[in-house]
Amino acid sequence: MTFSAIDIKSINTIRCLAADAVAKAQSGHPGAPMGLAPLAHVLFNHHLNFNPKNPDWYNRDRFILSNGHACMLQYIMLFLYGYEGMTLNDIKGFRQLHSKTPGHPENQTPGIEVTTGPLGQGISNAVGLAIGQQSIAAHFNKPGFEISDNYTYCIFGDGCMMEGVASEAMSVAGHLKLSNLIAFYDDNHISIDGSTDMALTENVLARLEAYGWHTICVKDGNSDLEGINNAITEAKKIKDKPVCIKVTTTIGFGSVNEGKASVHGSTLKDDDIFNVKKKFGFNSEQKFIVEDDVSNLYAQRAKEGAKVEETWNSLFASYKEKYPDLAADYERRFKRELPSNWEEHLPVYNPSDDDNATRKLSEAVLNKLFDVLPELIGGSADLTPSNNTRTKGVVDFQPPQTKLGDYSGRYIRYGVREHGMSAIMNGIASYGALIPYGGTFLNFVSYAAGAVRLAALSHIRVIWVATHDSIGLGEDGPTHQPVETLAHFRALPNIMVWRPADGNEVSAAYKMAIGSKFTPSIIALSRQNLPQLEGSSIEKASKGGYVLVDSKNPDIILVATGSEVYIAVDAAKKLKEEKGLSVRVVSLPDWHTFDIQSDEYRLSVLPDGPPIMSFEALSTLGWERHAHEQFGLDVFGASAPFQDVYDFHHFNPEGVAERALAVVDFYKGTKLKSPMNRALKGPFKDIS
Amino acid sequence: MTFSAIDIKSINTIRCLAADAVAKAQSGHPGAPMGLAPLAHVLFNHHLNFNPKNPDWYNRDRFILSNGHACMLQYIMLFLYGYEGMTLNDIKGFRQLHSKTPGHPENQTPGIEVTTGPLGQGISNAVGLAIGQQSIAAHFNKPGFEISDNYTYCIFGDGCMMEGVASEAMSVAGHLKLSNLIAFYDDNHISIDGSTDMALTENVLARLEAYGWHTICVKDGNSDLEGINNAITEAKKIKDKPVCIKVTTTIGFGSVNEGKASVHGSTLKDDDIFNVKKKFGFNSEQKFIVEDDVSNLYAQRAKEGAKVEETWNSLFASYKEKYPDLAADYERRFKRELPSNWEEHLPVYNPSDDDNATRKLSEAVLNKLFDVLPELIGGSADLTPSNNTRTKGVVDFQPPQTKLGDYSGRYIRYGVREHGMSAIMNGIASYGALIPYGGTFLNFVSYAAGAVRLAALSHIRVIWVATHDSIGLGEDGPTHQPVETLAHFRALPNIMVWRPADGNEVSAAYKMAIGSKFTPSIIALSRQNLPQLEGSSIEKASKGGYVLVDSKNPDIILVATGSEVYIAVDAAKKLKEEKGLSVRVVSLPDWHTFDIQSDEYRLSVLPDGPPIMSFEALSTLGWERHAHEQFGLDVFGASAPFQDVYDFHHFNPEGVAERALAVVDFYKGTKLKSPMNRALKGPFKDIS
Repeated sequence: MTFSAIDIKSINTIRCLAADAVAKAQSGHPGAPMGLAPLAHVLFNHHLNFNPKNPDWYNRDRFILSNGHACMLQYIMLFLYGYEGMTLNDIKGFRQLHSKTPGHPENQTPGIEVTTGPLGQGISNAVGLAIGQQSIAAHFNKPGFEISDNYTYCIFGDGCMMEGVASEAMSVAGHLKLSNLIAFYDDNHISIDGSTDMALTENVLARLEAYGWHTICVKDGNSDLEGINNAITEAKKIKDKPVCIKVTTTIGFGSVNEGKASVHGSTLKDDDIFNVKKKFGFNSEQKFIVEDDVSNLYAQRAKEGAKVEETWNSLFASYKEKYPDLAADYERRFKRELPSNWEEHLPVYNPSDDDNATRKLSEAVLNKLFDVLPELIGGSADLTPSNNTRTKGVVDFQPPQTKLGDYSGRYIRYGVREHGMSAIMNGIASYGALIPYGGTFLNFVSYAAGAVRLAALSHIRVIWVATHDSIGLGEDGPTHQPVETLAHFRALPNIMVWRPADGNEVSAAYKMAIGSKFTPSIIALSRQNLPQLEGSSIEKASKGGYVLVDSKNPDIILVATGSEVYIAVDAAKKLKEEKGLSVRVVSLPDWHTFDIQSDEYRLSVLPDGPPIMSFEALSTLGWERHAHEQFGLDVFGASAPFQDVYDFHHFNPEGVAERALAVVDFYKGTKLKSPMNRALKGPFKDIS
Repeated sequence: MTFSAIDIKSINTIRCLAADAVAKAQSGHPGAPMGLAPLAHVLFNHHLNFNPKNPDWYNRDRFILSNGHACMLQYIMLFLYGYEGMTLNDIKGFRQLHSKTPGHPENQTPGIEVTTGPLGQGISNAVGLAIGQQSIAAHFNKPGFEISDNYTYCIFGDGCMMEGVASEAMSVAGHLKLSNLIAFYDDNHISIDGSTDMALTENVLARLEAYGWHTICVKDGNSDLEGINNAITEAKKIKDKPVCIKVTTTIGFGSVNEGKASVHGSTLKDDDIFNVKKKFGFNSEQKFIVEDDVSNLYAQRAKEGAKVEETWNSLFASYKEKYPDLAADYERRFKRELPSNWEEHLPVYNPSDDDNATRKLSEAVLNKLFDVLPELIGGSADLTPSNNTRTKGVVDFQPPQTKLGDYSGRYIRYGVREHGMSAIMNGIASYGALIPYGGTFLNFVSYAAGAVRLAALSHIRVIWVATHDSIGLGEDGPTHQPVETLAHFRALPNIMVWRPADGNEVSAAYKMAIGSKFTPSIIALSRQNLPQLEGSSIEKASKGGYVLVDSKNPDIILVATGSEVYIAVDAAKKLKEEKGLSVRVVSLPDWHTFDIQSDEYRLSVLPDGPPIMSFEALSTLGWERHAHEQFGLDVFGASAPFQDVYDFHHFNPEGVAERALAVVDFYKGTKLKSPMNRALKGPFKDIS
């Protein structure tokens, strides 16, 4: 490959567009796009397989910008290649309300694979995207039909390398020998505080080699296009390791402040931009310059990309003839469609069925669904025997060399890496055709909070199997007992937080989690055994909340979730028998689902009139939304056998009944408004 | 050093005690204590400086068990050395309610430095403890008076090494060249899922070397006591790097299942314990065996430890004579006492003072206090110019070799490592004599959730300076805009979550955060400018909530925090002028502090009668606790200039007034109970 003047001009076009766009917004990060323009140009124009006219082509190479603040670089590439709907106006609308060009890349924009910006996430997603490809290839490729062979390319910076989540994911990538992953380390020696000498003096490539990566250096990433190109070519030849190419660049290349922290996150001054353009041979008076030869070059590549997809389409057509069932499954899965009647496989329980921990009932669901839903791909952050996430007979997802499994395996040994696991799951879900679930203790989903919130923001289907969901885990003690965790995730938009009370509710939780294509879920599960409840059903629980035990003209309504529901039922019996009180018991396994039911339905469950008291063995914060009074855990738990901890907090029928009586007494003579009956409604607090 | 039969016997005593204690509890982790007994014996008996009779001796060596599930090992050592109040009964009470021997080590137990168990935290705390020592040494040591020279020793396992938080902290340790930190990697090749071959095949020592650590191997950690001893001796000679000694051990050494995952977290069977004792030459019928020669050996070492402290006490007495002011300051700081009148330095503002962002007002407080409180040690996770955390003229905490600062520096460049920073701050606070604060965006405090919750559980004083605290950060967009974050941390016990509205409230937040010796704080601060409010004061805000603008017989009460308070005030004016409504405005900067005020006070602020409407530009979840109606952000934000995002959500005086009117209308004719007026009260939901 020989690069010529047009390549340089194209690269300088990108640089100037980035400077102009950030200056117009008076906000953003010009430095990294200007430094990375050569890499982006060589990668997109000579290696990346993509068709701008069909950004969702299943076998496209995936490109991830982990240093998401450099997003103007990616927006410019999408614009130059003529991606659907990315116009110069979008570039000019950078960081404005409702633009396709927000301050960090969001996967709602066509061509953006995953939402990045929070550092360390993108490179971790990239590991997931690479796993996704290996899994799909192992399931669908046939001799002569390599229908899945795409690469995942990812650019990351010093910031990503410092984040623990990236460390976790990159260690996983090395262990898994993901040779379809090629990452570029933008070694520009600058972070927000200044030179990386202040805080990052480790040997980054030596660290990656310790993880099992192959590494390559490009010393002059500003102008050695040949070097960048050769490095990528070499990387593709490595067949048993992920590859990291360190590309040393100058942040803000061309600016009078190039190489300084000041070009990282601040607009270039007008005269600086003027001089940059002059230096690069452009008309300094003009803004947003794209000359015809540059735009032709990229248009040409876009056409080549469309042809690559056409070739693949032909291959897939032949594949479809030879393997019609596989091809149908491939398409079904990428379209996020589920097999018909899959829900019929969900276990159903009667009150006479054995007591069981909901984590075990979750295992029963997974065992039933695993063959029905080949898109399920499980795992655990080294708590497999506690999370009960490994289905019968499943093969581990491992490099075949290890003899511990292969890439067709559907169970991932994530290691003790909750955040990495979660960000990897986000990548797997984003690859398509796969529904990842991963186990850890509910308390340690908090370690992964950064990735959980991005799943919600990105509208992707990821499932956290969060066992040991309260002080009910007992002896491990307060370091492992969640208190704040449910409130945390209930406050997050677009995520379901299920806490099922018995087998039917566990089935309902999975029904909703798997059936919701654009919403992630946390399923909180008990360590301890619970009875199968009279009155529960998959259908009722699928509404998020329902009347479990009804009673005429209730004196009080008890609302509970998960392992506390049966205790509430016992308390209700006690109150009836001993005090003659009429008590309704409501089970509320998922607030998100309940809160989007009709006003009418919600008021039928939690009506005006009697006081409502909540009972859950975690923080009461937020329960005021559904109950007038709250009984729960507003202190840390303690290390002791389950029943001792519960009794200490009066989390037993006696304790609940005692408090319910006090509540009835307190509100005697008052007809209360239901907490469902509000002046302000909906997420935008519309006026009713 | 030559080890003899008594050493072996002592080690086997530890092993059998661990097996017995876990068996008695029928819960816990016998494997690691049995594998690590030789290391613990050599370390405690030949290197660690400690006085069991005074576990708080300031210059003691710190010992951290990062693989906290192995805590029985540490409890046994504390017991054998006769630590205050750790008896055989405590060992027998393992994992029982209110014991000193909970399922994972908690710092409330004398001799336990930091609360561990959640993996990766302990080793990260250890980095903070080592920083603490270097800082204290740099401030107080004088020629001939090395009053601070203790080491921090830490044992960590495979699990810790997989956690990202440890990666972050260990990279910091390498960068900072903390040669006072000696860590032991328990290389036992086993995690919960089984062999580490499944998930951890990286070269751990090569990774640590890449971080800048010195590494040493002990191949036979089961019986090569000489080797362990020599490695520690060698480690102490390294003067410019932290040291990691990899000790290869056999988990569950002695058990029939030694080396297998099954001994990690399960009780040994009775016949197995029987045979272990037999193999080690003990009476197999007996339980909790400590023979006299063993107990004498440890008692002897305890006496030596007491003598080491005595020697130090003499040194300190001379130091006190020569440097009385320094000595007084040293003692004051270790006792957590603050200089008298320090609060007088807090800035006070008038309504006529300039508008300012609370992050800038926070900087003003830090500038005022930094000289007054030499125990303050700041930093930022690479957001210094955004967090405004670096005080004027401060020196960076850096290895002198870098010429970027020295160990007397009081500003730490944590790099983009929020979780590592937070766990390190926990360690610094636990060292004593230092009050760490660290900056990041509020949204990224979530990355550190694991460490934040441990600060709360551990009752230590750590301060997160959490700027850019809402969609008010504008253009960076929803990936950076917190929504769920305040609800998350408000649901956590024992932590203050301040969101001050102006300069006086910022001063109040710091007054409370610094003045609360056993409670950590998050201070949420705005990026955007806010006016100085009429009616605010440090004193009033220090109650957590107060009436900012009063009005007779209010038709409605508006309650707000931080950057929304002035908008509520404007809305109140509008409602009065345009609709003739009487509106009270309440500012509620910290719920934790407000909720522990007297019922009377809280009801005086939020009385029975009028409807109360909250207004905060984050999730409304939890606001039902203080208001009948909630106006806030229950969806993700958007990337756009601050005012555009606010206006889009109607977060302006018009939007607030419109909703307030609807609320007044909805509740017309109803005398409402205040949300402060409840049947169930206090964190234990006592019955009133």
